[in-house]
Amino acid sequence: MLHSDELTGLKELLNSRQPGYGLPRQFYHDSLLFQAEIDHIWRQGWLFAGHSCQIPEPGDYFLYDIEGDSVIVVRGDDGMVNALYNVCRHRGSVICQQPEGHVKRFICPYHQWAYDRSGHLLVHNGMQPNLDKSQLGLHAVHAREVEGMVFISLAHEPEDFDPVESAIAPVARPQGLARGKVAKIMDFDVAANWKLVWENNRECYHCNVNHPQYIKANFDHYNADDTIPRVAERLKSVTLRLESKLGAAGISLREETGMTEFPDPDHGIWYAANRTPLEPGYVSETMDGKQVAPLMGDYSDPEVGTLRIRSLPNFWIHASCDHSVAVCLTPIGIDHTNIRMIWLVDAKAKEGTDYILDKLLPFWLLTAEQDWAICTNQQRGVSSHGYTPGPLSTYKEYNLDRFLRWYIQEMKTRLDQ
Amino acid sequence: MLHSDELTGLKELLNSRQPGYGLPRQFYHDSLLFQAEIDHIWRQGWLFAGHSCQIPEPGDYFLYDIEGDSVIVVRGDDGMVNALYNVCRHRGSVICQQPEGHVKRFICPYHQWAYDRSGHLLVHNGMQPNLDKSQLGLHAVHAREVEGMVFISLAHEPEDFDPVESAIAPVARPQGLARGKVAKIMDFDVAANWKLVWENNRECYHCNVNHPQYIKANFDHYNADDTIPRVAERLKSVTLRLESKLGAAGISLREETGMTEFPDPDHGIWYAANRTPLEPGYVSETMDGKQVAPLMGDYSDPEVGTLRIRSLPNFWIHASCDHSVAVCLTPIGIDHTNIRMIWLVDAKAKEGTDYILDKLLPFWLLTAEQDWAICTNQQRGVSSHGYTPGPLSTYKEYNLDRFLRWYIQEMKTRLDQ
Amino acid sequence: MLHSDELTGLKELLNSRQPGYGLPRQFYHDSLLFQAEIDHIWRQGWLFAGHSCQIPEPGDYFLYDIEGDSVIVVRGDDGMVNALYNVCRHRGSVICQQPEGHVKRFICPYHQWAYDRSGHLLVHNGMQPNLDKSQLGLHAVHAREVEGMVFISLAHEPEDFDPVESAIAPVARPQGLARGKVAKIMDFDVAANWKLVWENNRECYHCNVNHPQYIKANFDHYNADDTIPRVAERLKSVTLRLESKLGAAGISLREETGMTEFPDPDHGIWYAANRTPLEPGYVSETMDGKQVAPLMGDYSDPEVGTLRIRSLPNFWIHASCDHSVAVCLTPIGIDHTNIRMIWLVDAKAKEGTDYILDKLLPFWLLTAEQDWAICTNQQRGVSSHGYTPGPLSTYKEYNLDRFLRWYIQEMKTRLDQ
Repeated sequence: MLHSDELTGLKELLNSRQPGYGLPRQFYHDSLLFQAEIDHIWRQGWLFAGHSCQIPEPGDYFLYDIEGDSVIVVRGDDGMVNALYNVCRHRGSVICQQPEGHVKRFICPYHQWAYDRSGHLLVHNGMQPNLDKSQLGLHAVHAREVEGMVFISLAHEPEDFDPVESAIAPVARPQGLARGKVAKIMDFDVAANWKLVWENNRECYHCNVNHPQYIKANFDHYNADDTIPRVAERLKSVTLRLESKLGAAGISLREETGMTEFPDPDHGIWYAANRTPLEPGYVSETMDGKQVAPLMGDYSDPEVGTLRIRSLPNFWIHASCDHSVAVCLTPIGIDHTNIRMIWLVDAKAKEGTDYILDKLLPFWLLTAEQDWAICTNQQRGVSSHGYTPGPLSTYKEYNLDRFLRWYIQEMKTRLDQ
Repeated sequence: MLHSDELTGLKELLNSRQPGYGLPRQFYHDSLLFQAEIDHIWRQGWLFAGHSCQIPEPGDYFLYDIEGDSVIVVRGDDGMVNALYNVCRHRGSVICQQPEGHVKRFICPYHQWAYDRSGHLLVHNGMQPNLDKSQLGLHAVHAREVEGMVFISLAHEPEDFDPVESAIAPVARPQGLARGKVAKIMDFDVAANWKLVWENNRECYHCNVNHPQYIKANFDHYNADDTIPRVAERLKSVTLRLESKLGAAGISLREETGMTEFPDPDHGIWYAANRTPLEPGYVSETMDGKQVAPLMGDYSDPEVGTLRIRSLPNFWIHASCDHSVAVCLTPIGIDHTNIRMIWLVDAKAKEGTDYILDKLLPFWLLTAEQDWAICTNQQRGVSSHGYTPGPLSTYKEYNLDRFLRWYIQEMKTRLDQ
Repeated sequence: MLHSDELTGLKELLNSRQPGYGLPRQFYHDSLLFQAEIDHIWRQGWLFAGHSCQIPEPGDYFLYDIEGDSVIVVRGDDGMVNALYNVCRHRGSVICQQPEGHVKRFICPYHQWAYDRSGHLLVHNGMQPNLDKSQLGLHAVHAREVEGMVFISLAHEPEDFDPVESAIAPVARPQGLARGKVAKIMDFDVAANWKLVWENNRECYHCNVNHPQYIKANFDHYNADDTIPRVAERLKSVTLRLESKLGAAGISLREETGMTEFPDPDHGIWYAANRTPLEPGYVSETMDGKQVAPLMGDYSDPEVGTLRIRSLPNFWIHASCDHSVAVCLTPIGIDHTNIRMIWLVDAKAKEGTDYILDKLLPFWLLTAEQDWAICTNQQRGVSSHGYTPGPLSTYKEYNLDRFLRWYIQEMKTRLDQ
C-alpha cells in the first residue's frame, strides 16, 4: 500500500530515535506511521480480547472491536472458544448488534442467512440453489485460550502461540481465571497514543507522587538507586515467608525490587508472567490490603503475593488472591486509545454477600485514572513543536527503553517483510 | 485533479467487482473514490431538489445544500422555477440564511448588494460606477420542473433532460404533485454510504422480515422463486379491476410481481416511472390500507394502485391516491447520507380536518426507519477487513446488480472523459 | 516538507488572484495552503499573546496555545516577561495544566522535574547524575513586551522587532496598558478562515447596516465617496479641539475619514498605531459615548479620541480614555479561528464601584458578534463551488486589497526561502 518514498520516510523515522532517549514527536503525530503500526503490529500480533469466563455456555458471545472490525468471540458447541468476523458473507451486514449475548444460531438481520456457532452457513433461503454453502461460512479469526484468557490474531498466518502458552499457563494456572466471573467492566477513552500508555506502564518512576495507593502495596517502585537496606530487609523477610507457603505448590516467586524486565527486545519476547510479594500486611491490591472477595482458583491461603502477566501490544493483568484486574488497549486513532478494565472474582462469589464493588474497585480504578490523566497530559506535550525527546533514567526507565527498542525493532522487521 | 497513479488506482478498483457479487470493501471506504463519485456522478447528474409546490408564489424559495454548496430554488416572477447559487458575487457571502422563505429581492447581508428573483444584480452601492452589473448576477444552476418535481444539475453542460421528462411526465401527471402541499418534511442522517441506500432500495429480498407493513400492501416482494399460484391469481384479479378503471383515462399499469427492472445499465437509463396495483383492500400505502387524505390530482376514484418514480443518483417517490412520499438523498461523507422525506397531500387539504399526520406518516416512516437501520448496520460490516463481497440472489437481487453495473459503468465512462 | 509538485501548486494558487478582486475559493479550502500559512506566517511572525498586566508578579503566568503548541508566558524574577514551551524536557509532558496561575517553580506532574521561572532545570531526582542540567532547561520562545502588549515568535530567528516597537510604543504609551488590569476575557470559536476575519476587519463598507453602535462613535466608515461636507466639517472641528488638548502632550492625531491605510505591502509593514477623533459627544467607545471607567494611563482628560494598534497576523486593539479592547486571533483549522477578546481598565479601578461590565462590554461585544456572524456566513459562501471572487470597492475596500497583497507577498517570499 505504501509508496516507496513513504516507506523510506517511515524507515528514516524509525531510525531517528537516539539510544537512551524517548521517541521524537513524529512517532505520536504521523498518521502514516500510525497506519503502519495498525497494519504491522496490531493486525499481525496476538491481542487479548477478553476472558473466557465471560462466555461460560455454548452460544455465549462477546464482541471485540478494533479499527472498524468487529470480531465475535463465541463459545462453540464443543466448549472451545472461537473467533469469527461479525460480517455476513452475503451483503456484509454486521450480524451481532449487541456487545454481548447468547445465540442458538447467528442470523443476519438483513436477509436472515443463518450460521451455526462455528460459523458454518446453514440457511440462505432466496438464493440460487447451486451455491456452495461450505464456501460461505463466516470468516474465522485465529483464537487461543490460555487459562481463561482469550487471545486473537487478525493475521493470516500469525506467529506461533505455543511458546506464549508455555510461558504463561503454568504461572497463571493457580489463579483460576477460567473459573472466574466478571465483577465489573469499565471502558475509558484516553486521549493518548497507545505507546504512551505502555511507556507509562513500563516505569514506576512516576509512582511515588502519582500513585499513593499503589506504592503502599508494592515493592517494584523501588529501584537500584533508592532501595535502602530497610526495604531490602523487608522484602527478604516477606519473600521467605511466601516461598515457604508456595514452594510446596510449585509456585515460584520473584524477589528483587524494581520492575520485572519486560519486554525482551534482544530475543523478541513480547509476553511474560511472574509472581512477586506484596508489602507486609497486604494480601490483596486493595485500599487497606485486606482480602475483599473469596479466594480464587487453587488458592487455599490469601498470602500469594501478586500475579502479573503482560503481552504486547495490548494486555496486562494484576491478580491478587481474591480478584484480578485485566487491562486491554485498543487504539482508536493516533491520539486516542480505548482502555477496557475487567475485574474478575471467583465464579461462585455473590455480589453483596461475598464482595462489594466499593471495596473491590478503588485500588486499581484510582491508579488507572491517575495514569490515564498522566498519559493525556503527555500526549498534549509530545504533540508540541516544543517537544524534544529527553534522556531516560537508567535507574528507573530501563523497561521503557526495552519497550521502545522492541517497538522499533518490530516495526523495522515487519516493514521489511 | 487526480494524479495519474490515482486515476489508475480508481480504474483498477472499478474493474475489481466480480460479476454477480457485491462491491469490494474499498467502494465504501476509499475517500478518493468518494470524491470521484461526487465529481463525476453527483456534480454531473440531475438531482431532485424538492417539489415545486414548496414554493407556490413568486419569490418563495427553498435551499438545497450539497457538499458545501448551497443552491437557492426560487419561483421567479414569470412563475418558472429557477436555481441560483446562494453566493454573493461581491465577497462570496451566503445570501439566504434560512432554509426556506420569501424574498422580494435577494439582499446580501454583508454589503447589501441586491439581486432580483432571477439573480440579476440590481444594486451595488459603494462600488465604482464603471462596473458592469450584467456580469455580476448570481451564478445560475440548471433547473427543470417536471410535474411538480424540481431537478437541478450542477454540471456546466448537463445531460439532455428531455428524454427524462418524456418518460416521467405522462405517468406522473394524474398525481398532480404540482397541485400538492407539504404535509411533513423529515431529515435523517444515516451512517451509510449512499450506494448502500440504493442497494437496499433495489431489492425486496429483505422485506418479508424487515418490513411487516410494506409487504401487506405490495406485490413486488414476491419473486420468480416464491410467487405461488394463489398470489398470481390475486394479482391478476386486482390488475384486471384496476385496468378497467384506469384504462379509459389512458393510465397504464404493470402487472407482474417482483420489482420493476431499474436501472437499465445496458442503455444508460437512470430514470423510470410506472404504476402498479396494491394488494386487495389497499387503496393507499397506509397502515390499514385505507385512504387518509383527499384524492390528489386528477383522480376521481381512490383505486389507482401506486405510482413510483425513481432517478439516480438521489430520488424516488411512492404515491397513492391521496398522498406521496418523496425520498431525496444527499451524501455528506463516504459513510454518511442525508435522507430527506417529503410527504405531500392535495393543496386544498386541511390538516386536522382532511388528514392527520398520525394516519399519514406511519407506513413510510416505519418502513424508512427500518431501512436506515439496515443500511447503518451494513455500513459497519462492509467497513470491516473481514468483509468480502458475497453472491447476489439471481431471483431477488437482479435490480441491485443492475444498479451496481450502472454505477460502475457511469464512473468508468466519466473518468475517461 | 512539501513535494516539489505541491510547492508548484501552491505558487500557482498564490499567483491566481486577479488584481482588485477577492481570493479564489482554494484560499479558504486547500488544507495544504493552510498548513503552509501556519508554517510560513504563523510560525514565522510575531504573535500577540496577551497583556503583561495579566501577570503582574514574578511567577504569574498565562498560556498561549497555537496549533498543538502550548506556550507559557511568565513574569520572571527580574520582572521581565519570558515565554517558554510548556513541555517537560524529560518525557514531554505538559507542565502547566491551568490556563493561568502562579508558580514558585515549574514542576512537571509526571516525574517532578523542576525548573525555575526562567526555565532552567533545577531538579531531576531519579536520573543518572552525569546528566548536564544546563542542557535540559525548558525551550525558550522569543518574547517582547511593548507598552504592556506581549508578542511572541515561534521562529528560530524571528524578524527584527525593534522597528515594531519604535512604531508602536510612542503612540501606545499614554494609554498605560502595562498599568491596566483585565476586566473581562472572552473566547469565540468562529467558523471562518482567519483571513476572512482580517478581510472583515479591513473595511467598513459593511458598517452602516451591520454595526449600528460602531458608526455612531466613529468617522472611519465614511469614505471618499460618501463624506458629505457636513461630516467633513464635523470632523475638522472635533479634530481641532482634540489637537489643542493633546498637542501639548506630544500626542498626534489622524484627521481624515476612511480607515487608516494598513497594512503596507509595498514596504512589508505589518504593524501600525495611530490615534483618531471620535464623534462629538463620544469620549469612549461605549453605547452612549460616555466614560464608563476611570481614566487610564497618562490621561487627565477623557477627550483623547481612540487609539488603535494592529499587527499581522493576529492582533488589533481599540482603546478609549477609560478602557481598551484587544482582539487576538488563533487559527484552529482552515475554517475555524479562535478569537479572544480582552477588556482592560486601569489597575486601580474596582469592579462594581468604578466600573460595571454591563456598561463596559456591550459596545465591542455587539460589534464583534456582528462581525463573527458575518465571517461565518462568508465562510459558508466561499466554500461553495458557486463562489467566484468578486471586484473590490476602490472607495471602501482599499485596505482589504492591501491585506490580500501583503498576504500573497509574504507567502510567496517565504515559500521561496
